[in-house]
Amino acid sequence: MQPGPDLQTVAIYAPVARRLVQVEERLRQVCQTDIADLNPLLDYALASGGKRVRPALTLLAAEFYEHPQERSLIMASAVELLHLATLIHDDTVDNAGMRRGKPTINKIYGNHVAVLLGDYLFATSATFVCDTGVVRVIRRFSETIMELASGQLIEFFTTFEPSKARRLYDERIYRKTASLFRTSAESGAILSGAPESQVAALRQYGYNIGMAFQIVDDLLDVQGEASEIGKPVGNDLLQGVLTLPAIMLMERYPNDHSIDKLFAAIQAGDASVPELLQHSIDMISESGIITDCFAVIRGYCADASEALDTLPDCAPRRSLTQMVDYIRERTR
Amino acid sequence: MQPGPDLQTVAIYAPVARRLVQVEERLRQVCQTDIADLNPLLDYALASGGKRVRPALTLLAAEFYEHPQERSLIMASAVELLHLATLIHDDTVDNAGMRRGKPTINKIYGNHVAVLLGDYLFATSATFVCDTGVVRVIRRFSETIMELASGQLIEFFTTFEPSKARRLYDERIYRKTASLFRTSAESGAILSGAPESQVAALRQYGYNIGMAFQIVDDLLDVQGEASEIGKPVGNDLLQGVLTLPAIMLMERYPNDHSIDKLFAAIQAGDASVPELLQHSIDMISESGIITDCFAVIRGYCADASEALDTLPDCAPRRSLTQMVDYIRERTR
Repeated sequence: MQPGPDLQTVAIYAPVARRLVQVEERLRQVCQTDIADLNPLLDYALASGGKRVRPALTLLAAEFYEHPQERSLIMASAVELLHLATLIHDDTVDNAGMRRGKPTINKIYGNHVAVLLGDYLFATSATFVCDTGVVRVIRRFSETIMELASGQLIEFFTTFEPSKARRLYDERIYRKTASLFRTSAESGAILSGAPESQVAALRQYGYNIGMAFQIVDDLLDVQGEASEIGKPVGNDLLQGVLTLPAIMLMERYPNDHSIDKLFAAIQAGDASVPELLQHSIDMISESGIITDCFAVIRGYCADASEALDTLPDCAPRRSLTQMVDYIRERTR
Repeated sequence: MQPGPDLQTVAIYAPVARRLVQVEERLRQVCQTDIADLNPLLDYALASGGKRVRPALTLLAAEFYEHPQERSLIMASAVELLHLATLIHDDTVDNAGMRRGKPTINKIYGNHVAVLLGDYLFATSATFVCDTGVVRVIRRFSETIMELASGQLIEFFTTFEPSKARRLYDERIYRKTASLFRTSAESGAILSGAPESQVAALRQYGYNIGMAFQIVDDLLDVQGEASEIGKPVGNDLLQGVLTLPAIMLMERYPNDHSIDKLFAAIQAGDASVPELLQHSIDMISESGIITDCFAVIRGYCADASEALDTLPDCAPRRSLTQMVDYIRERTR
């Protein structure tokens, strides 16, 4: 975990705090290659200041059984490396200039370097997973990379395509987010030698918390409060991307064509875009859809909690429960 | 192997011709995902009409011992998939518009799709390798992806940097080309259950033929003849990339600064570029450097042939020898 002000996260991570420091050390070792020019780029990419949620999941999921600690440590480092690699490619394809208050790799070094550095980090994460020696985990990890890439491709294919976007919504957020959450938890369980029922429980947990995480992310800005809820939804709509509130709007009012009109205006570069956007946001706000979205999130949270019920009560399980509570609290 | 007019390649591939058809079938299966929009893109990317040198190497290297044929088949498919994934990213970062007479993925679908499709294929190739179940081969494959990406990054770091480019030349061509040739041959040997001495011999063979292949590629156009030798060298120089003839020129005439002057003119956008370029090409032509480059290629070919000496005489070994001859013939 990064040193930071988020005391709630610190408390949740307590059972694996020491091991998360070791993850940071592993990530720093990635920056010491024999190609001198590569190292500062890696330094910059890996010091991203994220919350390290995915490695925490792996380590917590592995804590239920005594096991060779090296295995879960390299796995935890691998899931974070993979996450950072995807951020580099996502920023490149989105032409994003800033992330977490810092200029992006593509902004500083160009798309050329960003594509290749992302490739390098994808492969580095895979070599880490290979060092676990467990083919099942290695294969699941490769499938996760396929799911991450195809999730982004689905987003691209469904841009400005409302009916397709509705049909593929669950698939898209599973692939782009919940897949890696699932793999983070599942692989920790497998590598700790947990019985299959427990592996399945932690896989379910990871899946559900990942789905909840993505929907929260689509609703709230990083520091978002309820009053700002329209902002990320509106930003996504301007990019032609339908998130859950917009999908619910279309489902609830099949004869209202606000979003179709908005998309047509955006694609035509029409001056009516701000007005049409505000109209859609207002409809979402006034229809109680946000409350319904929160209910969907709480549903995923409930399923995540339920998956934990079969696990022995202990500090790591309490941390996993607190992670669910942390997400659920954002729906109040 | 693609049906095509290259009868010499057909003869070389004869011992594995039937299995190369199976590789094509495996590649076609990759195009049948449950994401309808993705399949035509995959179709387009995989029907590239390449010579399938890398899968042929894997299959030939595996032919020395009876083994479960499925293993070497999926490995052969994986090395070709990986190669095709790298081409997509290379074309994207180079902003290339055409490859083998067809518009590139980035040209047709944009950089956005090309980056994500490349990622998807990288990961798909890795899942194929996982299906071999052999961690040593899986790890080597991941390292190869790291080497491919870092080879391209070295090319970027050494662009317009003559002294760095000289120092890192061998490392660069190993990583960008010879690494995957090495892995193609080595993994075939490992998966066939060959003894370690034979694995080492085929690794050496793959490395050396890969180095020779890249230097030939830098000297001659695809259909190049001796008279056109200056063309690829000149094209690379205009991009700030030093290939072997230019490096030899700088080493042979340390007090001549033709290439430094050329690079300065290119970076300044000076009108003298064509004249300076012609001057460097003429110096290379008149100094006998091309003959020396051919000698370097023949040196790698000799090392590749020597590596084969320890292997039992049989049809696949004769094919591997013919591959060396095929490259060596281009140096006459």
